[in-house]
Amino acid sequence: MFQVLCRSSDGPARRGRLNTAHGMVETPAFMPVGTQATVKALTPEELKECGAQIILSNTYHLYLRPGHELIRELGGLHRFTAWDRPILTDSGGFQIYSLAALRKVDEQGAVFRSHIDGSLHRLTPELVIEIQEALGSDIMMCLDTCIHYPADDMDVKNGVNLTTQWAERSLKARTGHDLLLFAIVQGGMSQTWRQRSVLDLLELDFDGYAIGGLSVGEPKGLMYDMIDFTRPFIPDEYPVYVMGVGIPEDLVEGVSRGIDMFDCVMPTRNARNGMLFTSFGHIVIKNSRFKGDSRPIDPICTCYTCKNYSRAYLRHLFVAKELLAFRLNTIHNLHYFLHLMREMRKAIETDTFEAFRKGFYQKREIIK
Amino acid sequence: MFQVLCRSSDGPARRGRLNTAHGMVETPAFMPVGTQATVKALTPEELKECGAQIILSNTYHLYLRPGHELIRELGGLHRFTAWDRPILTDSGGFQIYSLAALRKVDEQGAVFRSHIDGSLHRLTPELVIEIQEALGSDIMMCLDTCIHYPADDMDVKNGVNLTTQWAERSLKARTGHDLLLFAIVQGGMSQTWRQRSVLDLLELDFDGYAIGGLSVGEPKGLMYDMIDFTRPFIPDEYPVYVMGVGIPEDLVEGVSRGIDMFDCVMPTRNARNGMLFTSFGHIVIKNSRFKGDSRPIDPICTCYTCKNYSRAYLRHLFVAKELLAFRLNTIHNLHYFLHLMREMRKAIETDTFEAFRKGFYQKREIIK
Repeated sequence: MFQVLCRSSDGPARRGRLNTAHGMVETPAFMPVGTQATVKALTPEELKECGAQIILSNTYHLYLRPGHELIRELGGLHRFTAWDRPILTDSGGFQIYSLAALRKVDEQGAVFRSHIDGSLHRLTPELVIEIQEALGSDIMMCLDTCIHYPADDMDVKNGVNLTTQWAERSLKARTGHDLLLFAIVQGGMSQTWRQRSVLDLLELDFDGYAIGGLSVGEPKGLMYDMIDFTRPFIPDEYPVYVMGVGIPEDLVEGVSRGIDMFDCVMPTRNARNGMLFTSFGHIVIKNSRFKGDSRPIDPICTCYTCKNYSRAYLRHLFVAKELLAFRLNTIHNLHYFLHLMREMRKAIETDTFEAFRKGFYQKREIIK
Repeated sequence: MFQVLCRSSDGPARRGRLNTAHGMVETPAFMPVGTQATVKALTPEELKECGAQIILSNTYHLYLRPGHELIRELGGLHRFTAWDRPILTDSGGFQIYSLAALRKVDEQGAVFRSHIDGSLHRLTPELVIEIQEALGSDIMMCLDTCIHYPADDMDVKNGVNLTTQWAERSLKARTGHDLLLFAIVQGGMSQTWRQRSVLDLLELDFDGYAIGGLSVGEPKGLMYDMIDFTRPFIPDEYPVYVMGVGIPEDLVEGVSRGIDMFDCVMPTRNARNGMLFTSFGHIVIKNSRFKGDSRPIDPICTCYTCKNYSRAYLRHLFVAKELLAFRLNTIHNLHYFLHLMREMRKAIETDTFEAFRKGFYQKREIIK
């Protein structure tokens, strides 16, 4: 299912391959986020052109709209969206925490009101597996409880225990092994509880492990510390996924710490806000200095947007609130993120990852 | 420059070819509208895939934002937008009439306030030519005065006379003949003034003639009457363009009356509102009866959207306000319009236009 192909000789970075029902994912991999059964503004063809191997979709959103039974009847999420490569679905734990109103979490599950129409719902670990099986997602995630930051010890303890109990129930609820199932390590910013969470979950039989509850407002250093602390507990044979992370620097730091999978709304959401990632840092396209700038966003970028359009045109589209702006910006940002992952995979293969990492930071300092 | 290739034996429908600086346009042709230097939501590649030979852009909008001098410095509108096929630019007469505030029209030109920031501007026939030459549009339109509907005789008379004077000044203002220049026939709903307008303009030396001031709120029958009346005055060697028209029925009726060119925001704007054109009439995609409908929009359509996505998915995207909805709907609608034009061109070539026209209406009655 998961195979480590090679390792960096001077650190935990590794190059792997994850086998799913809809094909291979070369790792380390970044997953573009397609919350509502679409990566905003893009077609599957464009996603592939950007280098996407796998996308993430959201159980919470699809359960509420259009409904998992409808998607099942229509042949599953792949057929519904015309995306034929792997899909990972987030369990909804984070969305209940961040989006839903009036949520109440007890041992049984989570009761909450929909952010769309206020209707009342209950998600249990069992229902979340049922939904993900109905969607036909290649990698399912266990329902977890998200712990706010900062949190007191009792909240962290309860969150960790509930997450483990729910993980166990998720395993029992699955009806087959074609779809992979990952557990989510919680534990807030506590080493004690992170250790407890990961060890408890490792006693159960999952296909992979995610480190959740990061990128929730904590300082960057603390996030890296938690990855540094948690990662070594997870045996080599499992793929390790850090959820909701991050900016390009976080991807480089994550890979250097032995992380195999990432997802984040950053490239797509920031694209829609006109913030574009480049090899020399980021630019804000509406800035007036780009008004007559005939250069592409990033001169060394080979994406569709950079091959065809000037900063001046992209600024015009953005200022004029044209739909094409969202799309061209999204293509560029995703291409940048996915290209960065490709480069890291190549660097690990040739055992030059540390040199790559240094170069990555140097470019940002020199070219501005 | 313009060549009639063949004619329908049972009516004025004709098949032609218009040569421009950026290539041939096979007529009858429909021009998708790209108001602000983009056909909303689509790339040039998609426009071509939909069958677009030529697009329309707007002098008024581009003059205000980003400015024609900027576009000139960046190599012209084709380079700016990465669209390498012909572009026709509307003169701004209609936009001053419909969008700008505080407009005052005198013999010299039109003074108005920008709909974007309220700034004060003056457009003259000479400046409008200068702008269009700066943009590098393949077909320029003379600044005209748009006559509201209904209008009294004095307003119509003034509008017609001013339009003719401005057309004469436009001819003098152009600096070369690489870019074609079309005049716009006005005259409200008056045969007397339509005749006067077209005869006056025909005495001047234009590359083509447009029938303007239609589709401004008048009954459909009156619009066809005005085309019926005006069209025969224009000699065979000129391309004839009806501006701002129309729905599919209008295109069929226009072609059957010997019209060569059309433009309209209908396919693109209605797409964004979820109204989709099909061979059997139109559908409103957000309708709940499409919720679980696994069929494409139109089973006989070969567009990208129909080849890949169900009505259920398109409804979901539309209801969820996803950006991809605007795009997939626009692709379908434009493909439908442009395919309709292709079919009409083919029907004229094989001298089966009247049969085609009957079939067009029959399909709408039978399949619902």
